[in-house]
Amino acid sequence: MASLLRQVARLRQFTLHLPVRSITTNAQSRASAAAAIAHDTSSPFEQPFFADEPHGPRVSTPIPGPKSKKAIAELNQVFDTRSLNMLANYKQSYGNYIADLDGNLLLDVYAQIASIPVGYNNPSLLLAATSPDMASALINRPALGNFPQHDWASILETGILKVAPRGLNQVFTALAGSDANETAYKAAFMWRRQMERGGAHVEFSPEEIETSMNNQVPGSPQLSIMSFTSGFHGRLFGSLSTTRSKPIHKLDIPAFDWPQAPFPALKYPLEEHVQENVEEEKRCLEQAERIIKEYHNPVAAVIVEPVQSEGGDNHASPAFFKGIREITKRNNVLMIVDEVQTGIGATGKFWAHEHWNMAQPPDMVTFSKKAQTAGYYFGNPALRPNKPYRQFNTWMGDPARAILFRAIINEIERLNLVENTALTGDYLFNGLERIQRQYPEQIQNLRGKGQGTFIAFDSPTRDAFLAKAKALGINIGGSGAKAVRLRPMLIFQKHHADIFLDAVQKLVSS
Amino acid sequence: MASLLRQVARLRQFTLHLPVRSITTNAQSRASAAAAIAHDTSSPFEQPFFADEPHGPRVSTPIPGPKSKKAIAELNQVFDTRSLNMLANYKQSYGNYIADLDGNLLLDVYAQIASIPVGYNNPSLLLAATSPDMASALINRPALGNFPQHDWASILETGILKVAPRGLNQVFTALAGSDANETAYKAAFMWRRQMERGGAHVEFSPEEIETSMNNQVPGSPQLSIMSFTSGFHGRLFGSLSTTRSKPIHKLDIPAFDWPQAPFPALKYPLEEHVQENVEEEKRCLEQAERIIKEYHNPVAAVIVEPVQSEGGDNHASPAFFKGIREITKRNNVLMIVDEVQTGIGATGKFWAHEHWNMAQPPDMVTFSKKAQTAGYYFGNPALRPNKPYRQFNTWMGDPARAILFRAIINEIERLNLVENTALTGDYLFNGLERIQRQYPEQIQNLRGKGQGTFIAFDSPTRDAFLAKAKALGINIGGSGAKAVRLRPMLIFQKHHADIFLDAVQKLVSS
Repeated sequence: MASLLRQVARLRQFTLHLPVRSITTNAQSRASAAAAIAHDTSSPFEQPFFADEPHGPRVSTPIPGPKSKKAIAELNQVFDTRSLNMLANYKQSYGNYIADLDGNLLLDVYAQIASIPVGYNNPSLLLAATSPDMASALINRPALGNFPQHDWASILETGILKVAPRGLNQVFTALAGSDANETAYKAAFMWRRQMERGGAHVEFSPEEIETSMNNQVPGSPQLSIMSFTSGFHGRLFGSLSTTRSKPIHKLDIPAFDWPQAPFPALKYPLEEHVQENVEEEKRCLEQAERIIKEYHNPVAAVIVEPVQSEGGDNHASPAFFKGIREITKRNNVLMIVDEVQTGIGATGKFWAHEHWNMAQPPDMVTFSKKAQTAGYYFGNPALRPNKPYRQFNTWMGDPARAILFRAIINEIERLNLVENTALTGDYLFNGLERIQRQYPEQIQNLRGKGQGTFIAFDSPTRDAFLAKAKALGINIGGSGAKAVRLRPMLIFQKHHADIFLDAVQKLVSS
Repeated sequence: MASLLRQVARLRQFTLHLPVRSITTNAQSRASAAAAIAHDTSSPFEQPFFADEPHGPRVSTPIPGPKSKKAIAELNQVFDTRSLNMLANYKQSYGNYIADLDGNLLLDVYAQIASIPVGYNNPSLLLAATSPDMASALINRPALGNFPQHDWASILETGILKVAPRGLNQVFTALAGSDANETAYKAAFMWRRQMERGGAHVEFSPEEIETSMNNQVPGSPQLSIMSFTSGFHGRLFGSLSTTRSKPIHKLDIPAFDWPQAPFPALKYPLEEHVQENVEEEKRCLEQAERIIKEYHNPVAAVIVEPVQSEGGDNHASPAFFKGIREITKRNNVLMIVDEVQTGIGATGKFWAHEHWNMAQPPDMVTFSKKAQTAGYYFGNPALRPNKPYRQFNTWMGDPARAILFRAIINEIERLNLVENTALTGDYLFNGLERIQRQYPEQIQNLRGKGQGTFIAFDSPTRDAFLAKAKALGINIGGSGAKAVRLRPMLIFQKHHADIFLDAVQKLVSS
């Protein structure tokens, strides 16, 4: 009992210790949180979104410093720390800045592998996280398929579905990118077999029913999902069978016999290699169609990322993606766009595939990361399976995270953050181009022009580049074998870009 | 801005409208929440855990009633409602009682498919859900493998690892049952291939590296996981390949060519079929070992549930499970115990496999549901892959849910809930046995004796039984083809059992 009373006492004075000021969760502090987000946004992209954000990085020890080293050794007793990059103190992190245990504060253009949308300790999200709806969603988590909460329709309509890609008005919710993709694959396979059987009204045959229980055809059909070389779509068994990023992701794990088509290897700068790149994309499309027509395990769907992110930040032109749409339509195969990393505003559009201006939408679009929840959007009613309990699991998503995504969407709209990433991205790209002209050996294949802040370049000394950046106060990640990838949050502004460009200049000239 | 101010104003007066009293989230209300959980627990299993819980169900309209019908029609526009059982109002639900939109209040012995541990709107969980640590975990969700938070070791040690099964001191965290099982499978495959290569220090061959990227052997090996007939282990591609519950779960989805062994079909009452059941278990064990020795895709691990839950509440004796441990040890195959549904106290032990008194622990134990988080426990350091980034994904779990699980564990300890399920389970089983003697045709194969409240029986009119129970104020679910399964929360007490038994008596005698 004493400990409970202590807990209550502590709650009364709860303070998130932020670098510059404090946010508390009682009513008074909620008002101050609201005040912090009430500034004039008339010239949104010059004036800081958060007036009290730190003015720049602060590095006072090697990273990891002595306190971090001690804590990492302790953590290693119970948790694999071999992939640990930095032990963070999130209570001291704010906006674009991530803090560690030694008092260091880094400008974070990695953002939890591209999954923090509107800044650490964002006051608007704090309001949502401490709301009565959130508390109820956390402690009364429903089995959504059986016992949805009375306001689930409203949570969907004012959140996840409010930002549904054009042409898609339904969603199946999931927990993370991997299961978002896998449930989309399941929908594709059910749709395909339903079509082959002659429609949704045709019953399963006794042979299908019997063989399905033994994992054998025809009940468990040998169909496939086609993905592209260097693509990344998750690491569970179905999604990993479509992932083609790195051997370390795939070695020793059984995989389905599913095909991969080549993804275009574009040459940069694009304006100097126009004809070559057109031909490269044509070659890849031809091969993709040949595989769809000929692969021994028939292709039910094609999955593709608008920008291959884990695989090295590989881009292709809108014409390429329109080509995939044409091929899939022509061959009666579904097109799934994996927007797990590209979605939610970072490319200067809410969804990266909006850049393609396709006449017909993809059949499904998957999302997660910055949404903090996950799922797949679809429009065609035939993608709802013909019977209940075919696409089902205990939780089927998470109302708590759906509420958080709604708050993220509101914050994106309030601060006009998609336009911000478009404008700030152009500014950032121009700055990097300037440095590239000075140091063409150090900054190669700069890419992502016109794609918001979704920018990358190759570095001949990539791993050293990433490591040295920390000492200059920049937390940045890589992708593929040699790419430095920029994944700043949506609240990354020109003054952050200046700090970043300054550091890059120092790194390449040292 | 106006809407933000309204939001703040609303937060100040936030009230969870509970049936009997109100819980609010400001400091004063937290004190009242604490007071609500401060009663004397000296005779814990007779006195109500929550003094202000409703005294019984209240049904005043058909279910669904008019308000629910209208809301379900609206929800159906954006969400598949064909598996909807009841549209719930969680703010009006409390303890063991679930509310709907029409003012009905049902005793809930289904509990969100066995996933609510300590009652709706549990005041202790409300404290955790409104704590500063929770707010930070929600709005600053880390990529745990790269940027764990500074207190992650402590959250694990005071929560998930505090209740680790005997002999297992490590955990890999996940989001739900399916990915908990699939990451355990991945660990098993990596372990197996590592062993075949000659140890953790042996590098991958160039051929393995190359073929893995094409989903071909030897890089993507044709190894398997063996499961048991009627088992349920999830619905993503790897887990679904081990699930053998119902065709509707598996039809049209590609599956790995993995084997199943027969699960014992025990006869009830057990004391009248001792020799037959011993022989049945022997037969199943022999066949399991034959498959392990002979299956064309070598078996890396065997997965088994302590009680097959989705598959119809099928039990086996401790001797059977000890037999699996012996077989797997003898054949150098791992044993994974799937405690997703059986874990966290409902069987009268914290982990159901404690009932077996095995000399050697399983190699891995998976969990989710009542834990509100998920993962697999292991002890053998060889199950940590030999290189980083082999078992990895963006979030790798969820600190917010880990904090909630810690609060659940504390609540289980505070109220001695494991002992409660043991004692209340015995009382409940005896009551059902009494009714069974009166109506042997209506209550068949009663099972789960000595297994806490993890009780089930077969009903010749199962679906009608479940539907009629609602009108009597009982929310209860089925499993398999004909089982009525009881999955009350851990706070289900004798006086709830009396209400339930009363309803069963009415149902079978009507």
